[in-house]
Amino acid sequence: MLLKNNIPVSYVFGKIKFELLFVALYASSISIIHDNYDLQIGIPIAVPMIVGTAISLLLGFRSNQAYDRWWEARIIWGAIVNDSRTFSRQILTFIKDPEYSVEINIFQEKWIKRQMGWNYCLGQSLRDKDPDEGLNKYLTKHDMVFINHHDNKPNALLQLHALDLKYALERGWINEYQQVKMDSIITRLCDSMGKCERIKKTVFPTTYTMYIHFSIYFFMLQLPFCLLQYFGVFQIPFTIAIAAAFFLIDKMAVHLQDPFENKPTDTPVTSIARTIEVNLRQMLDDKEIPEYKASQTHFYQL
Amino acid sequence: MLLKNNIPVSYVFGKIKFELLFVALYASSISIIHDNYDLQIGIPIAVPMIVGTAISLLLGFRSNQAYDRWWEARIIWGAIVNDSRTFSRQILTFIKDPEYSVEINIFQEKWIKRQMGWNYCLGQSLRDKDPDEGLNKYLTKHDMVFINHHDNKPNALLQLHALDLKYALERGWINEYQQVKMDSIITRLCDSMGKCERIKKTVFPTTYTMYIHFSIYFFMLQLPFCLLQYFGVFQIPFTIAIAAAFFLIDKMAVHLQDPFENKPTDTPVTSIARTIEVNLRQMLDDKEIPEYKASQTHFYQL
Amino acid sequence: MLLKNNIPVSYVFGKIKFELLFVALYASSISIIHDNYDLQIGIPIAVPMIVGTAISLLLGFRSNQAYDRWWEARIIWGAIVNDSRTFSRQILTFIKDPEYSVEINIFQEKWIKRQMGWNYCLGQSLRDKDPDEGLNKYLTKHDMVFINHHDNKPNALLQLHALDLKYALERGWINEYQQVKMDSIITRLCDSMGKCERIKKTVFPTTYTMYIHFSIYFFMLQLPFCLLQYFGVFQIPFTIAIAAAFFLIDKMAVHLQDPFENKPTDTPVTSIARTIEVNLRQMLDDKEIPEYKASQTHFYQL
Amino acid sequence: MLLKNNIPVSYVFGKIKFELLFVALYASSISIIHDNYDLQIGIPIAVPMIVGTAISLLLGFRSNQAYDRWWEARIIWGAIVNDSRTFSRQILTFIKDPEYSVEINIFQEKWIKRQMGWNYCLGQSLRDKDPDEGLNKYLTKHDMVFINHHDNKPNALLQLHALDLKYALERGWINEYQQVKMDSIITRLCDSMGKCERIKKTVFPTTYTMYIHFSIYFFMLQLPFCLLQYFGVFQIPFTIAIAAAFFLIDKMAVHLQDPFENKPTDTPVTSIARTIEVNLRQMLDDKEIPEYKASQTHFYQL
Amino acid sequence: MLLKNNIPVSYVFGKIKFELLFVALYASSISIIHDNYDLQIGIPIAVPMIVGTAISLLLGFRSNQAYDRWWEARIIWGAIVNDSRTFSRQILTFIKDPEYSVEINIFQEKWIKRQMGWNYCLGQSLRDKDPDEGLNKYLTKHDMVFINHHDNKPNALLQLHALDLKYALERGWINEYQQVKMDSIITRLCDSMGKCERIKKTVFPTTYTMYIHFSIYFFMLQLPFCLLQYFGVFQIPFTIAIAAAFFLIDKMAVHLQDPFENKPTDTPVTSIARTIEVNLRQMLDDKEIPEYKASQTHFYQL
Repeated sequence: MLLKNNIPVSYVFGKIKFELLFVALYASSISIIHDNYDLQIGIPIAVPMIVGTAISLLLGFRSNQAYDRWWEARIIWGAIVNDSRTFSRQILTFIKDPEYSVEINIFQEKWIKRQMGWNYCLGQSLRDKDPDEGLNKYLTKHDMVFINHHDNKPNALLQLHALDLKYALERGWINEYQQVKMDSIITRLCDSMGKCERIKKTVFPTTYTMYIHFSIYFFMLQLPFCLLQYFGVFQIPFTIAIAAAFFLIDKMAVHLQDPFENKPTDTPVTSIARTIEVNLRQMLDDKEIPEYKASQTHFYQL
Repeated sequence: MLLKNNIPVSYVFGKIKFELLFVALYASSISIIHDNYDLQIGIPIAVPMIVGTAISLLLGFRSNQAYDRWWEARIIWGAIVNDSRTFSRQILTFIKDPEYSVEINIFQEKWIKRQMGWNYCLGQSLRDKDPDEGLNKYLTKHDMVFINHHDNKPNALLQLHALDLKYALERGWINEYQQVKMDSIITRLCDSMGKCERIKKTVFPTTYTMYIHFSIYFFMLQLPFCLLQYFGVFQIPFTIAIAAAFFLIDKMAVHLQDPFENKPTDTPVTSIARTIEVNLRQMLDDKEIPEYKASQTHFYQL
Repeated sequence: MLLKNNIPVSYVFGKIKFELLFVALYASSISIIHDNYDLQIGIPIAVPMIVGTAISLLLGFRSNQAYDRWWEARIIWGAIVNDSRTFSRQILTFIKDPEYSVEINIFQEKWIKRQMGWNYCLGQSLRDKDPDEGLNKYLTKHDMVFINHHDNKPNALLQLHALDLKYALERGWINEYQQVKMDSIITRLCDSMGKCERIKKTVFPTTYTMYIHFSIYFFMLQLPFCLLQYFGVFQIPFTIAIAAAFFLIDKMAVHLQDPFENKPTDTPVTSIARTIEVNLRQMLDDKEIPEYKASQTHFYQL
Repeated sequence: MLLKNNIPVSYVFGKIKFELLFVALYASSISIIHDNYDLQIGIPIAVPMIVGTAISLLLGFRSNQAYDRWWEARIIWGAIVNDSRTFSRQILTFIKDPEYSVEINIFQEKWIKRQMGWNYCLGQSLRDKDPDEGLNKYLTKHDMVFINHHDNKPNALLQLHALDLKYALERGWINEYQQVKMDSIITRLCDSMGKCERIKKTVFPTTYTMYIHFSIYFFMLQLPFCLLQYFGVFQIPFTIAIAAAFFLIDKMAVHLQDPFENKPTDTPVTSIARTIEVNLRQMLDDKEIPEYKASQTHFYQL
Repeated sequence: MLLKNNIPVSYVFGKIKFELLFVALYASSISIIHDNYDLQIGIPIAVPMIVGTAISLLLGFRSNQAYDRWWEARIIWGAIVNDSRTFSRQILTFIKDPEYSVEINIFQEKWIKRQMGWNYCLGQSLRDKDPDEGLNKYLTKHDMVFINHHDNKPNALLQLHALDLKYALERGWINEYQQVKMDSIITRLCDSMGKCERIKKTVFPTTYTMYIHFSIYFFMLQLPFCLLQYFGVFQIPFTIAIAAAFFLIDKMAVHLQDPFENKPTDTPVTSIARTIEVNLRQMLDDKEIPEYKASQTHFYQL
C-alpha cells in the first residue's frame, strides 16, 4: 500500500518512462520533419477527440474494475482480521475449563498461534513466496509435518483447525452447537482464502488491456499534427504532458488490479498479519513482541 | 480465460474480420467515387459526434454489464471451490469414527470423490457437453445409475449427497446439528449451480445489441465524408482504425457476457474443477494425480 | 425474455412508430417551409449538444437502473429455482421414514407438488392474471379451499407449507433443528415473493420519465435547423435516424424496468416455473410431463 | 410515491418556479440591455461547456446516489413486509397448541396485531408525526403504557415482542431453537428500523448541493450571451428551457434522496403498512377491514 | 457530518484558499503580461478540453469511491446501532430470571453499560483520541483494569462480553443456543469494528490524488490563454470560477474519503454513540441523562 506522502517522483514516472521516451522522440521528429520538409498535414482536434471518446470509456471502465479488485482484496483481508479475532475469542471463551487445567491452556495457545501462522502463510503463498518461511515460530512440529505434503498450505492449516475442533468436542471441552458455530468461522476463513485466490488467478480480460494501448497510441500519434499549428515547437511538451496523463491512469489501473504481486501497490498483507498477531497475543496475555517485520519503506508498506 | 500474454493478433482481429472488410470496401469506394465523380458532401465532424454520444453511452453500459456477468460467473466458481473444500473438511472432521473403521473410511472417500465429480459434471453441462463424460472415475456404479434418468445431473448428485447425509445421521456418525450444517453447504452448492444456470440461460437484452450495431454502422457510414476533406485518400486507414476500435469494444462485451460457451474467454471451469480435485485428493491423503486435463493453449485456458 | 435471434423489425420499430411518424412529419414540414419561404434560422450544432449532455446523463442513468430492476427480477427467480430444489431435497431427505410408509410418501409428494404450484401461482399473480388458474393440478382440494379466501394466494401457500412442517414435527417425522432449517427456506421463498412485489409495485420515479421525453423532444426539434445547412432535404432521414436512436434507448429502458407485465421483455416466469416442475418431478421419480405450456413465439419466451 | 400518470404540470414546475422566474428575468434583461445599449460580449458556446463538464459530472453523481437512497428505502420496507409475514407465520405455526386453547389464540392475535401496529408506528415516527396516533387499535393497554416513556417507540415494541417470546418459552409453547429463530426475525426488524433511521438522519453531503447550485448558476448566467448571437430575442425561451432541464434534474435528486419527509416522492410507508395489515389479518382469519387509510391523491400515494 | 444549512462560506472556500490565491495571481499576471508585452499565444478551447476528458474521468471516479467510503462508514455505524439494541434486548429477554434476583439485575445493567461504553471507546480510538476517556462512567473497575494493557481497547471489551456470556452459561442463566446466538452479535460488532479500522487505515490510492492535481493544474494553466481572446481582463474571474469548481469537487472527495479524522465531514460517531446510550438506558428503565456531549456547532455534528 502506498502511503500518503513522499512518493518519489521517480517512482511515479518510472512506471511509464519507456512510453514517455517514445512519445518525446516521436513528437520531436514530427517537429523536425515539419520544420525541414514543410509537412502539410494539420489535423483538426475534433478528429482525435473521436478516439478520445473510446479511450475515456475504456479507461473509466478499467479504473473502476481495477479499483474494485483492489478494494475487494482489502475487504477480504479485513474480514480475515475480524474472523481471526472472533475465532480466538471463541477459543478462549467457548472452551469449558472449570479447573484451569494446564492441558487446555496449552491447547488454546497452540490453536491461536496456528491462526497467527495462517495469516502469514496465506499472505506468503499469495505473493508466490515460500509459504512455510518462518512458520515454525507459530506451529508445532506435528503441524509442520502435516502441512508438508500439501500444495495448499493454508487449506491444510484449516483442516488442522477442524481436527482440533473435533478433538475438543470428543474431550467434552466444547458442546455440539459450539463446534458447529466455530466451524462456521473456519468456513469464513476458507471463503476469504478462496476469494484471494480468485483475485490472484483471474486475469483481467486481456483484450481490454490491448484495446486501451491501441487506442492511446492511435490518439497520441495524431496529437502533434493537431498541436503543431497552435504551438509550433512547443507542441512537444504539450504532447508529452497529455500522453503522460493517459498513460498514468492506465498504469495505475494495471497496478491496482493485481494486489498480491509483491509490489508497492499491494494489499499490505504482511503488516495486516502482524496486526492480527499483536491482537491475538494480547488476548492470550502474551507479552512477546511479534518477530515478523513488514517490509516498509518511507513511501509504502507491504 | 485468456492468459496474460501472447494473444495472437489473428485471434483479436479474427473476431471482427467481416466488419473490417466491409468498412474497408465502403471507405475505399467512397474515395474512388469522390475522386472520379467529384462527390460534394462533406459532413462536419460534429454531426457523427451526436451519434457518438449514443454509442458511448450504449457501449459503456454494455461493457459494464457484460463484465459483471463474467465476474459474477467467476465469483460463483470461486464459491464452488470454497464450498467443495469446506464440505470435504466437514466430511473428514464431523464424522465420529473412534475406531477408524474401514467402512467409514470408504464412505468418506466415496463422498468426497462424488464432490470432485460434481464440479466436472456441472462444468460440462454448462458448456452443453455430455455431463456424464468421465464421471465414472469419481462415482460408484450405483450413483451412475441413479443420475442416469435425471435431466439435471448435478442436481441429482446433490440429492445423493443429501441421502448420504441422512444415512450418516441414521448410523449415528454425525449428530443432528452437523446434518443441518452440512445440508447448508449442499444448499450453497445448489445456489451456485442455479446462479450459473441463470447466467447461462438469460439472454442479454437483445435489443441493446441491435441498437449498438445500428448506431455503430450509422456512425461509421458518415466517417469517410468527414475525414475525406482533411486526409484525402488517407481517410481509408483512419476510418478502419476508428471503426475497429468501436467494433472491438462491442465484440469483447459480447464474448464476456456469455462465460459458459466453450470459448477462449470462458470462465475456466475445467481447470478450476481440476484445482478442486487436487485439493480434495490431498485432504484425503490420496497421492493420485488427477486424470482430467484442462484444455489449454498458449494463450487461453478452459 | 427476448430470444437471441429473429426479432422482427416490426417489433422493434413498432414500439416507437408514433414518435417516428411525428419526427418525420416535423422534419418534412421544416424542409418544405424552408424551400418555399426562405426560412433563415440555422442553429449551430453546439446548441443542441448542450441539451445532449442532459439527455445522455438521463438516459445512461435510466438504462442502468432499468437494467438493474430487470436483472434483479431474474436473480430473484433464480433464487426461487434454487430454493424450490433445496426445499424438495430437504423434504425427501430430512423426513425420517424407516418403514417406507405410504402415508409419508403421499405427504412428501403433496408437499413438493404444492411447491410446483406455488411457482405458477406467484408468476400468474405478478402478471395480474388469475392466480388460481390451473393450480388444481398441483394442490389438494383442501389446499384450494384454504387459499380461496386469501387475497395473497402465494403467501397462503407458504402458510400451508409451514403448517405441514408443524404437522411433520408433531408426528416425529422431522426433528426440531430440521423444522427451523426448513422454515428458513420458507422464509427465503417469502423474501423472494416480497422482492418481486416490490419491483412490481414500485413505479420508477415518474418525473425522470417526463424529463427525458421533454429533453429528447427539445433536442429533436432543433435538429432539422442544424442539419438543413449541410444536407438540405437529406436532413429528413438523418433527423429520423438520430431521433430513433434516442427514442429506442429510452423505450428499451421503459420495457426492462417493469419485468412482470406480460410483455415479450418480461422475466420468463412461466418457463422458469416449468423448469422447476421438471426438476422436482424427477426428484420425486415421477415420469409425468408437465402440462403447463409456456407461451413462446419464435422470438420471445414468457 | 408518484404514480404513473396524471402528474400535474403545476406540480413539476412548481418545484422550480423561483429559479425559472429568476432565469426569465435575467435573460430578458440581457436582451433589453443588448437591444438598447449595443452590448458587445458574445461568448462562444465552448466556454460554458467547460463548466457543463463539471455540472454533468456532479448531476450524474448526485442522481445516482439519490436514487440509491430512495431505492434502498424501498428495499428496506420490502424487507419489513417480508419479515412481518414471516414473523406472523412463525407465531401461527411454531407455537404448540394441541388443545386449541383460547389463551394461546388470544396470545397469538395480540402478538400479530402488535406487529401491524409496529409498521404504522415506524412509518409515523420516520415522518416526524406522532408515532402513537391510532396505535390503540393494535396494542393492548398494557403495551400502550409500556411504550409511553420510551423515546423510540418502535424499539420499545420490539422489546415487547422479545418479552412475549421469553414468556412463550417459559410456558413451553415454543422450544429453544424456535425462540432463537424468531428472535432472528426481531433482529431483522430491528436492522430495518435502524437502516431507515440512518437514511432519515444522514444528510447528503451538503457541499455537493452547494457546488451544483453554484455551477448551474454560473453556467446559466453565460447562456444568454452565447445564444443571443444566433437567436436574438428568442434566446429567452431557449435559455429558460435549458436551465429548466438542469434545475429539474437537480430538484428530482433532492426529493428522492430524503424519502421520509411526508412529500409526494416519499416511500409510501402508510400504504405498505396497510398492505401488511391486510395480509396479517387474513393469516389470522380476521375479516375486518383495516381502518387506516393511506392518504392518496390522483397522482401520488403516501 | 455537515448539517443542512448555514454552512459558512468561509468554511467552503477556506479549504481551497491557497489554490485560489495561486490561480488569481497566475491569471492576473498573464493579463498584465499580455497587456504590456503583446503576448501572442491564444489557445483554442478544444486543447484544454482534451485534458478535461481525463479530469472529468478521474474526478467522477474519485467522487464515487470517496462517497462509497463515507457511506459505508455510516452504514457500519448504523449496524453498530442495530446490534447494540439487539444485544441489549437479548441480555434483557434471554436471561432466565424467574425470581427477579438482584444479582442478575446488576449483571444485566453492567453488561448493557459496557456496550454503551464500547461505542464511545470505538469512536474515540478511530479518531486517534484517548480511547479510555470517560469510560469509567460505563465500566466497572475490574473492566477498566482488564482493558488497561490492551492496545485495542474495543476488542478487549468484546472479549469481556464473551467472558460474561460464558459466565452466564455456566450459571445456567442462558442456554446453549442462546450463548451461540449472542456470540453471533458479538461477532457482528467485531466485524463492524474491523470494517471501521479498514476504512481508517487504507489510504485511497495515492497516485490518483497526484494525477488529479497534476491534471487540474495543467488544465488551469491553459485557461487564461483560451479566455483572454474573448473576455480580455475579465478572464481573471472566469478562470478563478472554473478552477474553483474543479478544486472544490476534488477537495470534497478528499474530505469524504476519510470519515474518522475529527473533521466536520466525519461520520458523527459521538452523537451516534449518544443516541445508542439513550436507547439502551430506556430499555434498562434508567432515567439518567447521558453525560456525553457530542461537540456540535451550528453547521456540523461530530
